[in-house]
Amino acid sequence: MVEAPVEVAWKAIRCFDAPAEFLPFVESSPIEDGREPTAVGAIRVVTQVDGGVFREVLVAHSDADHFYSYTFVGSPIPVRNHRTTLRLRPITDGDLTLAEWSSRFEIAPEQEAELVGLMKTNFLAGLRALSAQLAGN
Amino acid sequence: MVEAPVEVAWKAIRCFDAPAEFLPFVESSPIEDGREPTAVGAIRVVTQVDGGVFREVLVAHSDADHFYSYTFVGSPIPVRNHRTTLRLRPITDGDLTLAEWSSRFEIAPEQEAELVGLMKTNFLAGLRALSAQLAGN
Amino acid sequence: MVEAPVEVAWKAIRCFDAPAEFLPFVESSPIEDGREPTAVGAIRVVTQVDGGVFREVLVAHSDADHFYSYTFVGSPIPVRNHRTTLRLRPITDGDLTLAEWSSRFEIAPEQEAELVGLMKTNFLAGLRALSAQLAGN
Amino acid sequence: MVEAPVEVAWKAIRCFDAPAEFLPFVESSPIEDGREPTAVGAIRVVTQVDGGVFREVLVAHSDADHFYSYTFVGSPIPVRNHRTTLRLRPITDGDLTLAEWSSRFEIAPEQEAELVGLMKTNFLAGLRALSAQLAGN
Repeated sequence: MVEAPVEVAWKAIRCFDAPAEFLPFVESSPIEDGREPTAVGAIRVVTQVDGGVFREVLVAHSDADHFYSYTFVGSPIPVRNHRTTLRLRPITDGDLTLAEWSSRFEIAPEQEAELVGLMKTNFLAGLRALSAQLAGN
Repeated sequence: MVEAPVEVAWKAIRCFDAPAEFLPFVESSPIEDGREPTAVGAIRVVTQVDGGVFREVLVAHSDADHFYSYTFVGSPIPVRNHRTTLRLRPITDGDLTLAEWSSRFEIAPEQEAELVGLMKTNFLAGLRALSAQLAGN
Repeated sequence: MVEAPVEVAWKAIRCFDAPAEFLPFVESSPIEDGREPTAVGAIRVVTQVDGGVFREVLVAHSDADHFYSYTFVGSPIPVRNHRTTLRLRPITDGDLTLAEWSSRFEIAPEQEAELVGLMKTNFLAGLRALSAQLAGN
Repeated sequence: MVEAPVEVAWKAIRCFDAPAEFLPFVESSPIEDGREPTAVGAIRVVTQVDGGVFREVLVAHSDADHFYSYTFVGSPIPVRNHRTTLRLRPITDGDLTLAEWSSRFEIAPEQEAELVGLMKTNFLAGLRALSAQLAGN
């Protein structure tokens, strides 16, 4: 839950290179080759504070419905049909916003629990950081 | 119906400045300010062969689900909440593609029949032109 | 926002004849002809405490995605393409539920403000009543 | 592709116990306990001509969007999060209908190819049988 109207919250996150600005565990997240931060096909390089590096490509973006989706380029963990989506939904009662961070993928059964756990932890931490930052505005 | 696999058909239309290449009634459709043709927020200027000019802004784009949506910037016809979507769906049986061109908007009742008729005519002509061009490849 | 897991909240509202149980402004809401309360095509007769009576037909229902949709049978207000949807979404953080009540329709411009205002008032009152009842469980 | 308008095609398949009427490989498909054929929660017993028997529960149904979804009750093949959807989409150009039969599920990797192959075969045969029957009307 974010204590801000959906348009305010969306403005803070709609650029694909914005994670470094609202996620405490992200050191930097620039887009490669000078491409635009809302251009489908653009690739961002996410460097975490723990040193982990991920390249992610934007596969969908919508100002109309307040979401974007991305997948990994060369993931360290072998997944198939992966897509992660960050979406905002307006809550009329109170002019608030619901932020959803969800992922779908196929993975070998012996690795599933680990990746699901990792994602749950990261998404929850990310959503709380986003909420805290926007509430402070 | 397009006689091409969805990925082939999508490649032909996914750039927001592509209409001039597949629509016979479009003279030119460049994007303003050198922005990228898949960047949400980019504006294209569609000049029709009959002289009509429309400025349209990309409000959603998805390589993942093969669609893009746009709305008018300063429409000559007063509509509200307008969004037009061009979407491709894969047809497994025959490796074909279904192209959908749909629009939603609110308009004064006395102008509704005219705009609905105009859109139906244009969308149908556009889909047939797209189908003919891709079948010829 | 409902302080209950989505499955608990859904169980309370999934039957099309349940409104009388959670809406204070609804006197009764039985289904006609002994049809089942999740059967698409079933009609309910909603009698409000102010005496207003509406017949509504179930046009979609989903245990899978926690929503149902209905439209009016012989509405007192002339609308076209009307569909109202009541939907629940799970909120992982806190095991809560977001309830959404939304409507789409076409209406003559001079009646739009009145109906939109009426719906906003009713939906908000309904959602708050639902939330209060489920929190009390 | 079905050579009939979407409302005509939907009428032929919308009842959950209709498969025996349009699928040549289905012997019978009655609904248990006298429940209604559009009631979410109803269970049908599909007996194939090869003797195979499946119990399937309706989890979503929509006259509004022309689809229904079901899952297995006690599947012989161990799958998780299974949902199969049969959906019709109107094709404006020609007043035709596109029928889609799709399934999602999680399964052990060593069984995936077999089940995916079986479903593709069955869905394709089913769609062609449906198309042939409706074209004959």
